[in-house]
Amino acid sequence: MYLLKCQTRFKTVAIAVSTLFLSLGAHAAHPNLVITTDDVKHMRQAISINSSGKFATAFELFKAQVDEQIAHPITVPVPKDGGGGYTHERHKKNYQLMYNAGIIYQLSQDDKYANYVRDMLLDYAKLYPTLDVHPQRKVDSQNPGKFFWQSLNEAMWLVYTIQAYDLVYDSLNAANIKTIENDLLRPVSLFTSVGQPSTFNKVHNHGTWATAGVGMAGYVLGEPEWVEKSLYDLEKSGKGGFIKQLEMLFSPQGYYNEGPYYQRFALLPFVTFAKAIENNEPQRKIFEYRDGILLKAIDTTIQLSYNGLFFPINDAIKSKGIDTIELVHGVTTAYGLTNDAGYLDIAKQQEQIILSGDGLKVAQALDSDMAKPYSFKSVAFGDGNDGKQGALVVMRTQVGGDQALLFKPAAQGLGHGHFDKLTWQFYDHGNEIVSDYGAARFLNVEAKYGGRYLPENETYAKHTVAHNTVVVDETTHFNANVDVGNNNHPTLNFFETNEFGTVSSGEISTAYKGVELERTLALINLPELESSIALDVFNVAADNAHQFDLPLHYKGQLIDTSFELKASTTQLAALGSKNGYQHLWLKGQAQPQNGLAKVTWLNDNGRFYTQTSLVKGDESFLFTQIGANDPQFNLRNENGFIRRVNAQKQHTFISVLEPHGEYNPSKEYTLEAVSRVSALKYTEQDDLVLVQLSIKGKSYLVAINKAHSTIKNTFKFQNKVFTLNSRLGVYAMNNNQE
Amino acid sequence: MYLLKCQTRFKTVAIAVSTLFLSLGAHAAHPNLVITTDDVKHMRQAISINSSGKFATAFELFKAQVDEQIAHPITVPVPKDGGGGYTHERHKKNYQLMYNAGIIYQLSQDDKYANYVRDMLLDYAKLYPTLDVHPQRKVDSQNPGKFFWQSLNEAMWLVYTIQAYDLVYDSLNAANIKTIENDLLRPVSLFTSVGQPSTFNKVHNHGTWATAGVGMAGYVLGEPEWVEKSLYDLEKSGKGGFIKQLEMLFSPQGYYNEGPYYQRFALLPFVTFAKAIENNEPQRKIFEYRDGILLKAIDTTIQLSYNGLFFPINDAIKSKGIDTIELVHGVTTAYGLTNDAGYLDIAKQQEQIILSGDGLKVAQALDSDMAKPYSFKSVAFGDGNDGKQGALVVMRTQVGGDQALLFKPAAQGLGHGHFDKLTWQFYDHGNEIVSDYGAARFLNVEAKYGGRYLPENETYAKHTVAHNTVVVDETTHFNANVDVGNNNHPTLNFFETNEFGTVSSGEISTAYKGVELERTLALINLPELESSIALDVFNVAADNAHQFDLPLHYKGQLIDTSFELKASTTQLAALGSKNGYQHLWLKGQAQPQNGLAKVTWLNDNGRFYTQTSLVKGDESFLFTQIGANDPQFNLRNENGFIRRVNAQKQHTFISVLEPHGEYNPSKEYTLEAVSRVSALKYTEQDDLVLVQLSIKGKSYLVAINKAHSTIKNTFKFQNKVFTLNSRLGVYAMNNNQE
Repeated sequence: MYLLKCQTRFKTVAIAVSTLFLSLGAHAAHPNLVITTDDVKHMRQAISINSSGKFATAFELFKAQVDEQIAHPITVPVPKDGGGGYTHERHKKNYQLMYNAGIIYQLSQDDKYANYVRDMLLDYAKLYPTLDVHPQRKVDSQNPGKFFWQSLNEAMWLVYTIQAYDLVYDSLNAANIKTIENDLLRPVSLFTSVGQPSTFNKVHNHGTWATAGVGMAGYVLGEPEWVEKSLYDLEKSGKGGFIKQLEMLFSPQGYYNEGPYYQRFALLPFVTFAKAIENNEPQRKIFEYRDGILLKAIDTTIQLSYNGLFFPINDAIKSKGIDTIELVHGVTTAYGLTNDAGYLDIAKQQEQIILSGDGLKVAQALDSDMAKPYSFKSVAFGDGNDGKQGALVVMRTQVGGDQALLFKPAAQGLGHGHFDKLTWQFYDHGNEIVSDYGAARFLNVEAKYGGRYLPENETYAKHTVAHNTVVVDETTHFNANVDVGNNNHPTLNFFETNEFGTVSSGEISTAYKGVELERTLALINLPELESSIALDVFNVAADNAHQFDLPLHYKGQLIDTSFELKASTTQLAALGSKNGYQHLWLKGQAQPQNGLAKVTWLNDNGRFYTQTSLVKGDESFLFTQIGANDPQFNLRNENGFIRRVNAQKQHTFISVLEPHGEYNPSKEYTLEAVSRVSALKYTEQDDLVLVQLSIKGKSYLVAINKAHSTIKNTFKFQNKVFTLNSRLGVYAMNNNQE
Repeated sequence: MYLLKCQTRFKTVAIAVSTLFLSLGAHAAHPNLVITTDDVKHMRQAISINSSGKFATAFELFKAQVDEQIAHPITVPVPKDGGGGYTHERHKKNYQLMYNAGIIYQLSQDDKYANYVRDMLLDYAKLYPTLDVHPQRKVDSQNPGKFFWQSLNEAMWLVYTIQAYDLVYDSLNAANIKTIENDLLRPVSLFTSVGQPSTFNKVHNHGTWATAGVGMAGYVLGEPEWVEKSLYDLEKSGKGGFIKQLEMLFSPQGYYNEGPYYQRFALLPFVTFAKAIENNEPQRKIFEYRDGILLKAIDTTIQLSYNGLFFPINDAIKSKGIDTIELVHGVTTAYGLTNDAGYLDIAKQQEQIILSGDGLKVAQALDSDMAKPYSFKSVAFGDGNDGKQGALVVMRTQVGGDQALLFKPAAQGLGHGHFDKLTWQFYDHGNEIVSDYGAARFLNVEAKYGGRYLPENETYAKHTVAHNTVVVDETTHFNANVDVGNNNHPTLNFFETNEFGTVSSGEISTAYKGVELERTLALINLPELESSIALDVFNVAADNAHQFDLPLHYKGQLIDTSFELKASTTQLAALGSKNGYQHLWLKGQAQPQNGLAKVTWLNDNGRFYTQTSLVKGDESFLFTQIGANDPQFNLRNENGFIRRVNAQKQHTFISVLEPHGEYNPSKEYTLEAVSRVSALKYTEQDDLVLVQLSIKGKSYLVAINKAHSTIKNTFKFQNKVFTLNSRLGVYAMNNNQE
């Protein structure tokens, strides 16, 4: 009888571990988690017969790195430091290193790698029984670790370490197996499962790591019950566990509620455990579960990128993209499952080969030049596990150069979500044009608040004004309350993509009490001009009079405004005192007259962008720069402008964004530096939005059908009959009729 | 007798042109300027035998462009508009088009191209006799054009048009030849020479275009006297003309006083006319003149670039670099002269092939993969025609990654020069780190002050505070007087490059009355750390007490300061009221205590930079952002900090700049985010500067010998004897001695 001490709900309890010593080794052969003995055979062969191939090259590189690392003495320190501290980082490096050395052992068949893993495991087995919960655990924490301050890291340790153990298993003697399993792997697995039911059973990303670690330990240590509990929760009720997580954490299309930045992070334990299940119990058909939800989740993560980077919604580091290691694993698995050559296109951009069976397939396919262009699409990704809690909408076109428009009538996305209902972002020619701040954070930069989320993430980046959507009375959506946000989501009214472009509309009435926000965005193709434009119609309707602000954060240098701009030239003051406004310097203001109000900027890559707003003289334009109340210079000093109306019950913000021209000072030419939009008119006919647009001498009628039920198919405009059988129509108009 | 009307010095005079009708055609064969009949033979052959080669590809591309342009009707409008206006741009396009069509005629032998040139020339011949000087000429101008508002453009017109005429000459009948020469080319040549003696004889870039145009016309029209006058001025005195320009406008090393941005512009007429001289009168050995000054000028233009872009000193558009068409011609000619494979390396980066004999050589050599790496060097380019008016110093190293340090104890550089004596710039890993604003200008962007130099070029960019050098009492060097600047230059005290790095020192006592400025900069290699550092010692000594400011303009985001920084959080005010200070917002200030004062920033490419200053508590640090008093948002909002001492007669600013580490949020690692410099001590022994530096656990002694005459070779430091036989020595110190 083995007594495992662990602390749950603030009490230390003793758990009887009766299953110990009953079985040693479970699969027929080791390894058999993500990597199988069959995989190993093929990988060894690949290395020996084609030493110049991508797989052999990756192996050599990886081996050289491992060689360098295992040259140092093994260090398994007594846990002491919190996240980012020495012992924390050392234990993270250790599990990664054991895993890596295990792989090199299998491929090189050189015992020194196995011995290294063995020795480190024995050190851990000596240390573990001496440990209580981590000294740096959060007060009142329900999920402390022992090696780490939180059990999330402990579960990650287990995910890697159990694989490392499986990889070197065949080289170990019975005594070592006994020590490692009984003093280390079993107690860690139990601590991670029965020792922390609230985390293990939780339908949450942390639960995924826990179930993945314990489930894989079940396969390796011959504990099928552990697998069952990992899949269906500790009571095997199905209310928690990996299967429930697959059901609840993704929308039917594979969208993860927190957005792509956290989606790629969450992906890894899903893909890893699923692959181990597939290899051990193919009859579970885990990759077919929920109509192939795992593959959809991988694919959606790719779709939620532009020019290699993830759309930076919510708490996101903006340089994260498709080459992150989690998605390298994901794409490798996706190709292994589907043989879809589009994934090779992504793998090529990732420039990393995984040393696994699927990784070998990818490497060989790339060696044979089999990649085909991956197809990025316009999609509305339904949010929430039912896919009906709003949506994250991606619109794309190639008509005016590679462009994307992201529209966010999506749910809050838990604690990392931003208060930015119905915001949008725009991308053109590979660059961010209408931008989202992302997270205020310098990851791992100690001088910047220990590398954690900066205080300005709470005081600026999460607030509504930091985004491109309406702020009422300078307060933030849901009054910046996450719980309220999680309980209320926008509605996706419609989404459609056709030859004319893509259109979508969403609304929400719970962001502010007594205020309805409704936004319709369209990315419209004008192929005869080799251009596209983004049309934005934002309707605000309130019970009482309010101030409405619609910010637009742009990347670049202001070039021109069609109206007189009064700049603050000798002094700058903060625009407001709270909800993010305290971080904006007011650089200038204007009150454009009735008609078209244009703002033109130039980005770093030499392209011009003009936002043309249709105004009635009631909108002020406030030009801002981020950076006020920022004593540590933590914020990026980016530019924007806010369209503001005061004391109104209703307002419709109407505008068109138009990329144009080229600034090429190197070759000394400048093309189309001036907006081509010469007229913009807006009318409604029942549920029809009708926008007349004159651009570069051509006139168009854009019709958007917002009807909730039937889509009517004919309408009359300027004595002419038009047919519209879809949501979006674009009609070339006789110039005389304009 | 032909009467040519032209306006000189505000009076219209009639010039008797007695040489007309005397000779038609001069060279033995046409064409024979830059392109010869022999070249044409080889080029035709190249196109016919290797249609996939670089030359044939360039020809096809060029021909397609010409085809598109000549499909439009010929337009030769009556001159009306100034620079940038319609008729100005049309006439510019016309001469370029005639030249291009002429080349395609020679290569394709298709008469339609020759006929196009002929017809346009005849249109010009019809128009020219009707013209008086240009209506948009500057009031009181001594150099108006007829097609253009200034004769510079008229001379450029002649340079291109005379070549176009030479290229199609063989296709013309005698009547057309007579009309074109007598009504157009001869009178334009005379207007450009005898009609404007002050411009033609001027030893100045404008004179180069005029002499190049008229001289080439002399070859084509059989006027050897014109050639003589072009070479030696209208009186053939040698006081002006092309030869004098070669003597006066470049330093002996080929540096052009205004800096690389204008150097590459000035290069084209030099290279073009020289090539024509070489082809017509090889006995003049023009390329050997002044020890091969033209080749040196081309090579120096390349040397004055970093990562493809010119060092942006003085009025410079920062995106201009080695791929500009003028330097493509230059590099093509240089390869033709030398067969030096290093030039092919540059030609490869230029990605443009000139359709000429030398262009063919370049294309064929690139086709055969003959390029060898071009070697960028550490050089002090002497300034002024004698090379003794200060110098522009370039230091380079590869020890810490590709780095360059530019030091500017150079002369003023005429009207486009900036008041930035002894300023510096620093480059690392391909990026600008310590930056120069360059010119305040959005070239050709109408909305930005007509695309001309912005008012802020005068009120900010030219001023001393916009650079990285000392400002006394918030006034600009030479009180911002160009004439005073042109008459006074710094002295280069020394320059040396050796195994330890590169060191240089310069001084000036005329930038401010009664103030001596002396700066010593060194780029020091620390190979065992795979690092290099820049050491800066700036000595200011004055007769009376003053305020001394030393700004540093950095590219990136502030990460940390080793001292307390009081930020302006709720209000920003301009730092001053004039001399550029009115354009700087004061974002924060600090008064570091005695010891090391560190400022760390992070650039967009994920590398950290720390400036460590050695202070005695008497320097304030003022953190600034450009953008105050900028009502049109014309300035880029870049960051900097100013080290300030008040009411001192003497001060030495001592600092070390250190690139370090890597921020990689995508791969989730951050390396060496913190400065490795732990100690910095400064002493002097007579003419020796001794700096003790501890970095990353290693200690060094850096010794710089500033002696004006003999270089002493032994010195004692901390009871140890050192030998220094050069300007710069770096000694690893026993850590116990530190």
